[in-house]
Amino acid sequence: MAQHNAFYAQSGGVTAVINASACGVIEAARENGDKIGKLYAGHNGIIGALTEDLIDVSQESDENIAALRHTPGGAFGSCRYKLKSIEDHRTQYERLIEVFKAHDIRYFFYNGGGDSADTCLKVSQLAETMGYPIQAIHVPKTVDNDLPITDNSPGFGSVAKYIATSTREAGLDIASMCATSTKVFILEVMGRHAGWIAAAGALAGEDATQPPHIVIFPEVAFHRKQFMARVDECVNLYGYCVVVVSEGARYEDGTFLADAGNTDAFGHRQLGGVAPTLAGMVKQDLGYKYHWAVADYLQRAARHIASKTDVEQAYATGRAAVEMALAGKNAVMPAIRRLGEGNDYAWDIIEAPLEQIANHEKFMPLNYISDDGFYITEACRQYLSPLIQGEDFPPFVNGLPAVAKLTLAKVEKKLTPFSI
Amino acid sequence: MAQHNAFYAQSGGVTAVINASACGVIEAARENGDKIGKLYAGHNGIIGALTEDLIDVSQESDENIAALRHTPGGAFGSCRYKLKSIEDHRTQYERLIEVFKAHDIRYFFYNGGGDSADTCLKVSQLAETMGYPIQAIHVPKTVDNDLPITDNSPGFGSVAKYIATSTREAGLDIASMCATSTKVFILEVMGRHAGWIAAAGALAGEDATQPPHIVIFPEVAFHRKQFMARVDECVNLYGYCVVVVSEGARYEDGTFLADAGNTDAFGHRQLGGVAPTLAGMVKQDLGYKYHWAVADYLQRAARHIASKTDVEQAYATGRAAVEMALAGKNAVMPAIRRLGEGNDYAWDIIEAPLEQIANHEKFMPLNYISDDGFYITEACRQYLSPLIQGEDFPPFVNGLPAVAKLTLAKVEKKLTPFSI
Repeated sequence: MAQHNAFYAQSGGVTAVINASACGVIEAARENGDKIGKLYAGHNGIIGALTEDLIDVSQESDENIAALRHTPGGAFGSCRYKLKSIEDHRTQYERLIEVFKAHDIRYFFYNGGGDSADTCLKVSQLAETMGYPIQAIHVPKTVDNDLPITDNSPGFGSVAKYIATSTREAGLDIASMCATSTKVFILEVMGRHAGWIAAAGALAGEDATQPPHIVIFPEVAFHRKQFMARVDECVNLYGYCVVVVSEGARYEDGTFLADAGNTDAFGHRQLGGVAPTLAGMVKQDLGYKYHWAVADYLQRAARHIASKTDVEQAYATGRAAVEMALAGKNAVMPAIRRLGEGNDYAWDIIEAPLEQIANHEKFMPLNYISDDGFYITEACRQYLSPLIQGEDFPPFVNGLPAVAKLTLAKVEKKLTPFSI
Repeated sequence: MAQHNAFYAQSGGVTAVINASACGVIEAARENGDKIGKLYAGHNGIIGALTEDLIDVSQESDENIAALRHTPGGAFGSCRYKLKSIEDHRTQYERLIEVFKAHDIRYFFYNGGGDSADTCLKVSQLAETMGYPIQAIHVPKTVDNDLPITDNSPGFGSVAKYIATSTREAGLDIASMCATSTKVFILEVMGRHAGWIAAAGALAGEDATQPPHIVIFPEVAFHRKQFMARVDECVNLYGYCVVVVSEGARYEDGTFLADAGNTDAFGHRQLGGVAPTLAGMVKQDLGYKYHWAVADYLQRAARHIASKTDVEQAYATGRAAVEMALAGKNAVMPAIRRLGEGNDYAWDIIEAPLEQIANHEKFMPLNYISDDGFYITEACRQYLSPLIQGEDFPPFVNGLPAVAKLTLAKVEKKLTPFSI
């Protein structure tokens, strides 16, 4: 097998463990130096490939690469940028090939979610469509847990653990104070279209008699009257009510409860503020004193409370991507397969065809949501619980989590500039 | 020394470590069973004393009491309720004495902040004013770090560590994405009148070239133009800007940036929403894509990332309160004294007179805030840094922090009901 170079990049919203996947890719590539020459990281995702902004990963020490495993964020820079179709933007694909050729890149590893899988799929087709021999492997990543085929998506388990932990902790706070202070607490969590993260909040308690008493999913149309009736019931039964609400909560007609009115590069609406919106409704309808929190980026960056299971899976999918590439695969994604439940939980890695991943969203199964629409079922708890198991605390220096400080040395450009 | 009973209660906003103080009080009381008979906890603070809602702490196992050390929230219930003056509400004080007499309570431990110190001071004067022999010791607690005399307030160090950790983590997230996504991130933190918690956010970086680039204190009047100039400068210099803002941020005329319009039992305005308010301004003035987070109760309940120093101090002040009571003291508070700086940081406990504590707020010294008003000084960093040192992770069970499950057995009432 001749030696060629590889390209790795991070795409879409970053997570607490996307760098653990990077660590897996890089360490596996280093172990196969006879086949993979240099590993170049794209600065800011696929944009780095287009603009020839490549980072020479070989200049990073083994210690720094190992430290990626406990560093949140995207160490090489990520992007929200989707390649258009080859028909519409042939020049972009020609440029990619030009860059790949110039740097002898034959392996393409793209670490992202559903939109990024689409980009990866397009790159994987360059051999067929444009005659450039490349193997493209997608490394799964998304806190939204909405990738199909894989049992779960790296990044999700750690957010799930953060949200469940935070909900448990805040629940104890509110329980302490409810006699004379806050009666209703609302925590807004991520999950634009799928309620996985909101569902994970329910792990904080054993059942709906413990916080959170109510979970609001994007999959279930929001009805103000039913919601208020349930809030009031909780306050009467327990003295207080804790609500975990997905940013994607919406009315029957599909309108989001909170719509900031902006649109991102993928055409998604920028959401935010459903917690204060709901809190305002509670005050208006029931008059209860409320508090609300919006975890926003804190949740997906919270490496300090990452799930050990998640970190291991993120790392393993990174390694598996390299192994698949070296086995001659193309247009695939290492997916996590569940092998057992509960105390027998185990997993391994299988190959998923990218065309079944790209642009397919996995929603919560209906049997994961309780009949009243405000809680998870036992089946959902069985699914979620293994994903938050184990702690993998980062090293702390001077009271704070230590993070990798990469040199990020740029590869000398060989081509003329390209603007995107 | 004759044996008498003791009363312990929690007051005001709870913290990640107020139960560690409870643990210190209870364990010290148990070790002095010859002098302190039963320890009764007030259910919901001083209200439990007035309504004779007492919890028989002797029925809790040693293991459960030890577990309080790693359980956030207020295990016995807290309250926002301030005793009025003896002149105006003599019946309340007569009732307190009635309850104390009925249960032979001669030691009064009140665990709270400045407002609660006032209640404790009033109780401490019952011997003089109404002839009932009682010793009242205040146990310090407040995330706001605004108690005078004591070097810092138990509860603060853990919030500081949480905010600094979260800001560092989220900062890495934003840095990864800023080329094509969010340019400005705003994290709202607690601290109504004092900017201590906001200042702690600055520990996330080494200086203002790292996130957070801007800290907004309640002590410094907010000027929109200057703020926008600094945000724009950061985006130009670093590609993004991370802001930590205190909920108490206010304009020159004292108006809060975000004023929810509600007033709590202490007459304080209920704040919330300065982050989205600021974010809206950024969009309007600069047009940058923004995200914002409001940590709210998550920050003060985050026992999973507590500061070891803080946990130890919270526990030690609890123990010291009992020791002071047994030494015959009254109207005092165990205060933390700093004995060394940096690597030589050390502390011990001294006695602070309650009349110098009650209703006195400690603000940030002016030399802790940079000249431009948007960052901390080196002196501030030197002060804050020791307070977040060390980790004290709780035990985890099934992927989540384990918490004490108290039986909370109520003491049989001996008196007629009393309504407050």
